[in-house]
Amino acid sequence: MAGSVLGTIFRVMTWGESHGKGIGVTIDGCPAGLSLQEEDIQQYLNRRKPGQSRLTTGRQEGDQVEILSGVFEGKTTGTPIALAVRNLDQRSRDYRAIMDVYRPGHADYCFDAKYGFRDYRGGGRSSGRETAGRVAAGAVACRLLAHYGIRVDAYTKSIGRIEADPGRFDLAERENNRLYMPDAVAAAEAEAYVEELIREQDSCGGIVECRIRGLPAGVGEPVFDKLDACLAKAVMSVGAVKGVEIGDGFAAARSRGSENNDAFYRGADGTVRKKTNHSGGILGGISDGDDIILRAAFKPTPSIARQQQTVNRAGEDVEIEVKGRHDPVVVPRAVVVVEAMAALTVADLLLMGRCAKL
Amino acid sequence: MAGSVLGTIFRVMTWGESHGKGIGVTIDGCPAGLSLQEEDIQQYLNRRKPGQSRLTTGRQEGDQVEILSGVFEGKTTGTPIALAVRNLDQRSRDYRAIMDVYRPGHADYCFDAKYGFRDYRGGGRSSGRETAGRVAAGAVACRLLAHYGIRVDAYTKSIGRIEADPGRFDLAERENNRLYMPDAVAAAEAEAYVEELIREQDSCGGIVECRIRGLPAGVGEPVFDKLDACLAKAVMSVGAVKGVEIGDGFAAARSRGSENNDAFYRGADGTVRKKTNHSGGILGGISDGDDIILRAAFKPTPSIARQQQTVNRAGEDVEIEVKGRHDPVVVPRAVVVVEAMAALTVADLLLMGRCAKL
Amino acid sequence: MAGSVLGTIFRVMTWGESHGKGIGVTIDGCPAGLSLQEEDIQQYLNRRKPGQSRLTTGRQEGDQVEILSGVFEGKTTGTPIALAVRNLDQRSRDYRAIMDVYRPGHADYCFDAKYGFRDYRGGGRSSGRETAGRVAAGAVACRLLAHYGIRVDAYTKSIGRIEADPGRFDLAERENNRLYMPDAVAAAEAEAYVEELIREQDSCGGIVECRIRGLPAGVGEPVFDKLDACLAKAVMSVGAVKGVEIGDGFAAARSRGSENNDAFYRGADGTVRKKTNHSGGILGGISDGDDIILRAAFKPTPSIARQQQTVNRAGEDVEIEVKGRHDPVVVPRAVVVVEAMAALTVADLLLMGRCAKL
Amino acid sequence: MAGSVLGTIFRVMTWGESHGKGIGVTIDGCPAGLSLQEEDIQQYLNRRKPGQSRLTTGRQEGDQVEILSGVFEGKTTGTPIALAVRNLDQRSRDYRAIMDVYRPGHADYCFDAKYGFRDYRGGGRSSGRETAGRVAAGAVACRLLAHYGIRVDAYTKSIGRIEADPGRFDLAERENNRLYMPDAVAAAEAEAYVEELIREQDSCGGIVECRIRGLPAGVGEPVFDKLDACLAKAVMSVGAVKGVEIGDGFAAARSRGSENNDAFYRGADGTVRKKTNHSGGILGGISDGDDIILRAAFKPTPSIARQQQTVNRAGEDVEIEVKGRHDPVVVPRAVVVVEAMAALTVADLLLMGRCAKL
Repeated sequence: MAGSVLGTIFRVMTWGESHGKGIGVTIDGCPAGLSLQEEDIQQYLNRRKPGQSRLTTGRQEGDQVEILSGVFEGKTTGTPIALAVRNLDQRSRDYRAIMDVYRPGHADYCFDAKYGFRDYRGGGRSSGRETAGRVAAGAVACRLLAHYGIRVDAYTKSIGRIEADPGRFDLAERENNRLYMPDAVAAAEAEAYVEELIREQDSCGGIVECRIRGLPAGVGEPVFDKLDACLAKAVMSVGAVKGVEIGDGFAAARSRGSENNDAFYRGADGTVRKKTNHSGGILGGISDGDDIILRAAFKPTPSIARQQQTVNRAGEDVEIEVKGRHDPVVVPRAVVVVEAMAALTVADLLLMGRCAKL
Repeated sequence: MAGSVLGTIFRVMTWGESHGKGIGVTIDGCPAGLSLQEEDIQQYLNRRKPGQSRLTTGRQEGDQVEILSGVFEGKTTGTPIALAVRNLDQRSRDYRAIMDVYRPGHADYCFDAKYGFRDYRGGGRSSGRETAGRVAAGAVACRLLAHYGIRVDAYTKSIGRIEADPGRFDLAERENNRLYMPDAVAAAEAEAYVEELIREQDSCGGIVECRIRGLPAGVGEPVFDKLDACLAKAVMSVGAVKGVEIGDGFAAARSRGSENNDAFYRGADGTVRKKTNHSGGILGGISDGDDIILRAAFKPTPSIARQQQTVNRAGEDVEIEVKGRHDPVVVPRAVVVVEAMAALTVADLLLMGRCAKL
Repeated sequence: MAGSVLGTIFRVMTWGESHGKGIGVTIDGCPAGLSLQEEDIQQYLNRRKPGQSRLTTGRQEGDQVEILSGVFEGKTTGTPIALAVRNLDQRSRDYRAIMDVYRPGHADYCFDAKYGFRDYRGGGRSSGRETAGRVAAGAVACRLLAHYGIRVDAYTKSIGRIEADPGRFDLAERENNRLYMPDAVAAAEAEAYVEELIREQDSCGGIVECRIRGLPAGVGEPVFDKLDACLAKAVMSVGAVKGVEIGDGFAAARSRGSENNDAFYRGADGTVRKKTNHSGGILGGISDGDDIILRAAFKPTPSIARQQQTVNRAGEDVEIEVKGRHDPVVVPRAVVVVEAMAALTVADLLLMGRCAKL
Repeated sequence: MAGSVLGTIFRVMTWGESHGKGIGVTIDGCPAGLSLQEEDIQQYLNRRKPGQSRLTTGRQEGDQVEILSGVFEGKTTGTPIALAVRNLDQRSRDYRAIMDVYRPGHADYCFDAKYGFRDYRGGGRSSGRETAGRVAAGAVACRLLAHYGIRVDAYTKSIGRIEADPGRFDLAERENNRLYMPDAVAAAEAEAYVEELIREQDSCGGIVECRIRGLPAGVGEPVFDKLDACLAKAVMSVGAVKGVEIGDGFAAARSRGSENNDAFYRGADGTVRKKTNHSGGILGGISDGDDIILRAAFKPTPSIARQQQTVNRAGEDVEIEVKGRHDPVVVPRAVVVVEAMAALTVADLLLMGRCAKL
């Protein structure tokens, strides 16, 4: 199995390594009839593309997606949609510094323990570059959801300890700063913080928040394939994510029932509404018709130029300085990855939901 | 599909409703040769059994498990292990108060939206009673893991805002208080808090922490079936869980790379060790040989006796008071459920790992 | 995994051994709202029940099914439907004759090779008794299909070399003879043949044919989950089946394109029809709107009272006479099993088909 | 789901259409450490390549495979192996003759019924060209099996009514004739028959037989994922296959238990052996250590140049003559496809078998 497949109905399989020939994904189960062009996918890939600023790695990835199958005369045919992105920047490099040494905070040691050896070039399969496949597939899922009036938007909630202020929330502002924060003031402060980290050869973490609007009530499968459970898996599977929460999340653990319960009421249009959204749009693992709210905590980029202690493949104590182009914080580029993972999850469960009733 | 199946190799399917004939689970894929008796499972079920104190619901569930298949002469045969628990306490009741009204914080409305109607007796399939199937299967997974020297232990980390102090951590203490806290001082404070909530007809949430010891490095499948991703799904699928984190979790988002990276070193026995465990035992989705640490945030019990606003099936505004026996906090009884979900996940990925190399 | 799960949307997991506590199955993914009672399932189980005549084993199985979950107020709820049948006839027996000896034509040796040991009582999990779980689940699938006007009927096509004559085909006749043949003349001849085999302490094979009427065009998933591929797997998974064919099957291999192609024409009602049905209702793995026709070849019952050569667990050459109650031919009781497997397959793919288009 | 995924541990997903950009497959779950080069795969693709003789279509497909990921320094890494073949021969053509007309014996009508429209160029996804992905993946599976001493060989058993004579069986002879028959005499006769069909603008079917040697006893999962059941699905999923049998297959249905049972005996080397192999190497769905024997019946190529009756998309009666390059019989090129499907199935179950015991 090996774990590169996600979904039951809308099912994707990704492939590719950081410095191999490319990155790709095949989607099996996208319904027929969806209008789809390479440009629809490219705009999502562009958002995760590196080299957009000093705050992200300078690597030139290009990331031009090609649709290899599954689309005919501009529409999906219902058969597998293969997407591929060629790796352009595979320049030959001196890997001796990392091929035999385990970088702290990376999966090098774990891959060796699991497989006996690893593709050490740029992290191989465990590189963040792998997320290009997720984003390409996620773009198709977003397009499918958009067809049903469902919109997925993620943004940077916090960088280190600097949080976007809900009182200043403006999604459009996300496009105006290099950190994808929906709050210009917090963004400026965070940018200064990241510049400082660069000077100190350090890195930081942050939180991505994602909001799904327009999802009808009734999506999600009890017991194990709950909407929140599937979202948690999808988002936690993104490298560097160490925590996921829905609605009030960990704060709910400190709350009381009388505060946390969302009262239902009859909306002006006669539909069932909630006065608050502590639930984050999910009750009992099934969407309740309100916005889905989830947050993902990203750890600091483990690749830092400072000297660190570690061991080599022979098990000897050694020191390492991780050279090269690395994001001081992965969060800005991870925003679109979280969107992609949320969209893939919702698309799959939305289709699954078609089978709930006679 | 409907979502009641978990796992690929060690695969379980659960069934049952709160007030139906019983609760059960079938395990397909447990290796042959494991010594297994009903008593091995019963001791886990006893830990989630209600009625153990004023702090948990007074319902008498009995929860006597029966092994229906898959064990011969005291050993698993490799074929499906069916486990069932009969519901004893199905006394006929007046459900009119909830059959047509959507309880806030519950899945009543979502089930109706999804299926068109629901088994309203005690929450039906969305009841916490469903976790008996998880625990029964989890007990078998724990036994399998124990065979390989792997031990899964969960405990109450916090009740509302009252946290167990890591400085006073004593796992054995867990058995000495009604809240399963590994800290006698915090437990006493928390018990007083819960008593107060009962008086106020309110409820609270809390956090369960789980530690997995003895898991070798190399378990977990890149990309989507990472160990942390699968744990997140399994634990988030437990009713009332709103957040999951691994290692430093959300705190890692506020940290720096230089702090968060765990330095590797050569252990006295020549093995690879880490000086710290910010990673919670998982790097790149694969176990790193250290203890796995995860936490689950539980929301407050939504069933409270106070009057709440809601709507009925006809979409009219109404008021509701949820009567009956309800835990003021689900955390103590959920401790063994988190253990079960963690064990099921690890057992599956451990077996999967047998196929990683030639 | 271990292989006791079938289906993706309409998913079943079976359990149970010949001489264990019982046999059961859980169905996850049956749509909500289907009217279902134990009697609906019982009538299918009654058709596979032994002891109906001298031509089938005299074992009294009872086979009273109990619905344990998933049905509320007479309708399926969309959550798992657990079905169980208690084994009544578990009388203690002397198994020494087979516990250490490998019966020819049985899976005894294979189970030992796979698992290291086996439940030797009556074949354990490899017993034909396991099919009770299939039939119980299949009965639910048949009921679901009937809701959509789809009907699955199997019957005995041949016993040994004696074939039902298509010119005398009368499905109703199936109920009038002990061999479930839709041809009274062939049935009489076949019964005489089976009586002869009983006298000779021998057994024979036969062919079951199954016809699915009312299935709309468009069901089945290219490439691997074709309707015929899934049917082949489902039917070949029944013990003793050694061959499966669709439409003209093996005869098509001896045919010409000009004979085998079914010409399309416009039906009186304006729909697309075929002049012939060599395809057996499936083209390119997708239903073509015509009747689905499949046949399964069953090998002779391996349990015969004659002396046979074999080896024991120690690998020594020994002789064996298989005592006890055994059907001289499994075909009559297998008819309803083939129906069940066909219905489970079609139900799953029919639901899957709901996701083919936007 | 859409059906383009096969396998649980050794899992493949294929993509591509006849006249799209290419055909490909990704393998997730191949164990790490297997030596693999493009040439290992190319030799399998060459065997299915068209244009090798007058008896196969003249289309120039090239079929140069490229390994895009999952191999590092000549060895599989355990991560997904992406394989792609570019379609070279996509010359623009006049499709008006088939774009609105349903070719008899093809899936055109079924695809329209399922998806609402179809990629009509050369059959799109339902083209035999799709099998290139199967063969590429199968080549990797064969290499994995070879590592364990398991060898999969298919050959043409019959063309129309002309059968290879078991008495003249010589596998090496397969390479000496254009029909892949292991019998020079039958091959000559069959070639003459096919030449005659070409003159008559007709086509024929045939049977492929496959033998798997070296598979140890114990592979296959009861109940639904039996080795024979999985083989049946895999092979029946190949376009044009209408029947599958194992061992004596349909002949077993006409046999007696006393003839069909294979007697066990102690081999000279002390292992368990069978005196005959009516079982085709599988008992109770699990390999018995003997050679696996399976046969697949292929229908005649539906594309024939003769005039045929059919309907168009508007549902009107029309006539059609299918022009272009078509194999008069698909069997010779399908031989390697059957090998591929058998190898994929056995590889998956072999790996699964690693989890059968503690």
